Amino acid sequence: MKIAIPLYDRFTTLDAVGPYEVVQRLPGAEITWLAAEPGPVGTDTGQLHLHADAAFEDLPDPDILIVPGGIGTYDALDDERLVGWIRRAHETSQWTTSVCTGSLLLGAAGVLDGLDATSHWLDLEALERFGARPTGRRVVQQGKIITAAGVSSGIDMGLVLAAKIAGPEIAQAIQLGIEYDPEPPFDAGSPEKAPPEIVELVRGLAAART
Amino acid sequence: MKIAIPLYDRFTTLDAVGPYEVVQRLPGAEITWLAAEPGPVGTDTGQLHLHADAAFEDLPDPDILIVPGGIGTYDALDDERLVGWIRRAHETSQWTTSVCTGSLLLGAAGVLDGLDATSHWLDLEALERFGARPTGRRVVQQGKIITAAGVSSGIDMGLVLAAKIAGPEIAQAIQLGIEYDPEPPFDAGSPEKAPPEIVELVRGLAAART
Repeated sequence: MKIAIPLYDRFTTLDAVGPYEVVQRLPGAEITWLAAEPGPVGTDTGQLHLHADAAFEDLPDPDILIVPGGIGTYDALDDERLVGWIRRAHETSQWTTSVCTGSLLLGAAGVLDGLDATSHWLDLEALERFGARPTGRRVVQQGKIITAAGVSSGIDMGLVLAAKIAGPEIAQAIQLGIEYDPEPPFDAGSPEKAPPEIVELVRGLAAART
Repeated sequence: MKIAIPLYDRFTTLDAVGPYEVVQRLPGAEITWLAAEPGPVGTDTGQLHLHADAAFEDLPDPDILIVPGGIGTYDALDDERLVGWIRRAHETSQWTTSVCTGSLLLGAAGVLDGLDATSHWLDLEALERFGARPTGRRVVQQGKIITAAGVSSGIDMGLVLAAKIAGPEIAQAIQLGIEYDPEPPFDAGSPEKAPPEIVELVRGLAAART
C-alpha cells in the first residue's frame, strides 16, 4: 500500500505527522515523502526540516495521498508541478486526503468541485473559489476524498481512514498504540468553544501574518 | 527562550512533533533539534527522517528540554552522550519534559528518583528501575519536571506547559490555532477504555517486536 505525503515550503509539521503516525502503523504501509526535490523541506517556522525521499514525479501512482496544509499553502496553489501531481495521482488513488489548508491544494487540482469539504476554520471560505461547499465538520468524506479541519484534526482523519482500510479493530489498536485519549487542559479547540476574545486574538494574529 | 528537542535513532515522530507544534507558537520560542550529529535522524520505522540542527554539546543550557520516546529508547538508555546531556541540561533548565518512553531517558539521567512519573502504558513499570513511581495519568508534573504518557499525549503536555510559561490565554490561542478539538472515531485510547481483545492485540504486537 503506497502512501504519498507531498511536502512544500512552509507546510505545517503536525498536519503531515498526525495522520502519518496513524497510517504508518497499517499492515503493509509504505510511506514516501515527496517534494520538488529529495532532501530537507522547511516547515512553516523554518525551525524544523523533514526529509523528502523523492521528487513528486518519482511516485505518480500512490494508493493514498495525504496533503498537508500550512502558511505556505497559498503560494503552493500556483505550483503547477505540485498541483498537477495531485491532479494526476488522484485519478488512480484509492483515497485522496488532506489536512488543514491542504484541502485548498485539492481544490486547485480540481477534485473538490461540487463537493463538501473542510479546512482550517480560518480558511473555510477559501474553499468556495474551487467550487467546494465549506463545512465546519472535523472530518468530511465524499466518496474517496477525505478532508480534515485544522492541523491536529489529521490524527482523527487518520483513524477514520485506518478503519476504512483495515477495519475498526486495527484502527482501535492503532489508537491504543499511540495512546490517543485526548485530555486538553482547556476546551478552546474550535471557534465555537473558545472564548470570543481568544477567537479575536487568533484572527488578529492570522491577519497580521498575511 | 531556548527549547531543545534531542533526537536519537528510532524515536517516535509524534512524540516530538506534538509538543513542538504547540511550543513553537510561544512568543520568543527558539527551537533547536539536537542529535549525536547534525543531519537527518531516522524515526521508529525508518520511513521518515527529521533534520537535526546541531549536536547535543552545541546547546548545553536550554531553557526547556522535550525528550521524545520511541522503540529506540531502550538502546538509547546506554548512550551516555545523550543521557549525560540530559543530566547536565536539567541542572539549569526551567522545564524538563518528556513524552512516552522519553521518561525512561529522564530516569536514566537520574532526575526522576523518588518522583511520580508517567510513560507509555506498556512501559510504565520500567520507570521503577530508576526510582520513579509510575502513575497512569496522562500528564504528571513534579516541580519543573513534566512527563507525559504515550505518543499523542505530548500535545496535551505541550498545552499544559504553554499555559505555565505564557498563561492560559496564550495556551488557548495556540489550542485554537492548531484546532485541537479532538474527535477520535473510537474511544479506545487507553487500556482502561479499549476493548480487552484490542489491549491484548497491542500487548502481543509489542511483545513480538521486542
